[in-house]
Amino acid sequence: MKVFQQLNLNDAATKLLDKNLPGEFHLSGRDDRRFETFADCEIVFGNVPLDWALKSPSLRWLQLESVGVDPYVDHLGAFSEKNVTITNLHGFFGQQVAETALAGILALKRGVDKTVRLQAKGVWQGASLRYELTMLHRSRVLILGSGSIAQALKKMLAGFDAEVLLFARNPERADLTTREQLDKELSNTDIVVACLPENAGTRELFDRNRLGLLPPEALFVNVGRGSLVDETALVELLQTKRLGGAVLDVTKNEPLPAEHPFWQLPNVLLTQHCGGGTRDELPRKVEFFLDNLQRFRNGESLFGVVGR
Amino acid sequence: MKVFQQLNLNDAATKLLDKNLPGEFHLSGRDDRRFETFADCEIVFGNVPLDWALKSPSLRWLQLESVGVDPYVDHLGAFSEKNVTITNLHGFFGQQVAETALAGILALKRGVDKTVRLQAKGVWQGASLRYELTMLHRSRVLILGSGSIAQALKKMLAGFDAEVLLFARNPERADLTTREQLDKELSNTDIVVACLPENAGTRELFDRNRLGLLPPEALFVNVGRGSLVDETALVELLQTKRLGGAVLDVTKNEPLPAEHPFWQLPNVLLTQHCGGGTRDELPRKVEFFLDNLQRFRNGESLFGVVGR
Repeated sequence: MKVFQQLNLNDAATKLLDKNLPGEFHLSGRDDRRFETFADCEIVFGNVPLDWALKSPSLRWLQLESVGVDPYVDHLGAFSEKNVTITNLHGFFGQQVAETALAGILALKRGVDKTVRLQAKGVWQGASLRYELTMLHRSRVLILGSGSIAQALKKMLAGFDAEVLLFARNPERADLTTREQLDKELSNTDIVVACLPENAGTRELFDRNRLGLLPPEALFVNVGRGSLVDETALVELLQTKRLGGAVLDVTKNEPLPAEHPFWQLPNVLLTQHCGGGTRDELPRKVEFFLDNLQRFRNGESLFGVVGR
Repeated sequence: MKVFQQLNLNDAATKLLDKNLPGEFHLSGRDDRRFETFADCEIVFGNVPLDWALKSPSLRWLQLESVGVDPYVDHLGAFSEKNVTITNLHGFFGQQVAETALAGILALKRGVDKTVRLQAKGVWQGASLRYELTMLHRSRVLILGSGSIAQALKKMLAGFDAEVLLFARNPERADLTTREQLDKELSNTDIVVACLPENAGTRELFDRNRLGLLPPEALFVNVGRGSLVDETALVELLQTKRLGGAVLDVTKNEPLPAEHPFWQLPNVLLTQHCGGGTRDELPRKVEFFLDNLQRFRNGESLFGVVGR
């Protein structure tokens, strides 16, 4: 059975894959990423172009290298008809992204962004910085989402005696499930952390009106998708000090255009869509794939099936 | 009874003090900090010069505006003979300093220091940053100290499934109490966080040999006193990558001299002795003093008595 490797691996990850790929699977795509090479592969590891996946005559299983399922998400019906299973890296990035979100929040609260900039200039400001700092302790945090990032973050926030509310569709996993409930809480929220996927219900969920409901000291954190927020409104609120700061792992356009005001805003941290990264990210992705490949081989159900 | 105000307050703190000082206490020192003005005061709020405190004929209670009790600590016998009670801000900075320590650790682990520097230059590096990142999750953390900072930090680290060991003299509050026990653990430690006071037992506790026991990826965090560590050795280990990074709220000399190598080291974060700061620090110090003043007035035992 042929496996098409669409993602670029480093040495450690390549070795791991080559050493553990069961003998009946033949790997292609590493050095030859043409459609002709892809066309007779039953399995894909990595995010191939949508049109390739849709027109493949052979594809049975597509293992994405992401949690996000755009652009495939709008074509799940077509894949289902072709009996193509799509799996994502469900849960893979939860801990990492939650740590980046908290790193950004604590950096703004404890002035780490300021001291890093001072250090780059060799300037000792010292004691006067103290009176610009705030604490995470006992903050009210509203997490948008209830998946692995939200759960990891909620667990971390317990150590700060934070009050945490989750907003999501599923009432079993969330404290708030409607936009009305959400809007009622915003004026009483110190920090919003968005870790939502992109879909019709989340695009521009944080429009100008909703952002405006937050108190002027509040922090807005987005580690989900850039499409969630009206960036023009966010910039204006930050510039006019009607919002305290923002930690943005994602933006609508990435790389962020050079002229975008986010670059210059003093209370904005741009973590450059690296929230999910770790030194061993690629070998761990290979492990995820190999685990699923064993399940595929044994006829078991796969981890992270999309659309279920 | 006369109260000498030695510390400089902001408007909010001044108002709070003036509004809540019981009528039988008369305040001086705010606008006149001469010894003559101080000499007949029974109570001091703030850290007066050691020699003033020692030669005062009137002093009964000295409320420090710090947790640290140097330089008074070497003269506790003399104060005791003169029936002077000294109180410090016991526990006041625990949560703040623990948050700064964790902010620094997470910044190094999740690359916030790097993205802040990139943002200052307007550079989008993006995905390649991911493979430089590590996680706090499941790290082994050795905390030097068992006071309020250590306790707050230990609670926070539980949310990261970290293994935490405390090193301190009191076996009821610590996992490790001897230097031999400490040294055995160091090679198996991901992060050392020092929150120890300065005394004969802590000066240069982290000398070249002890620092050298840490693994090359380890982080060294100091939010206690700069005298704890051999700074020359620390610089060398960081420069030669035999240590992963450092978060230093304190250094031997503050302000840190312009020529000190710490300024330039890429994996060093200097938080400029602001770890205990918050926007409301001064009003909160006034609250602490006023609480103790009520106790003093009622003949009750004070909070934070030094030497007990």
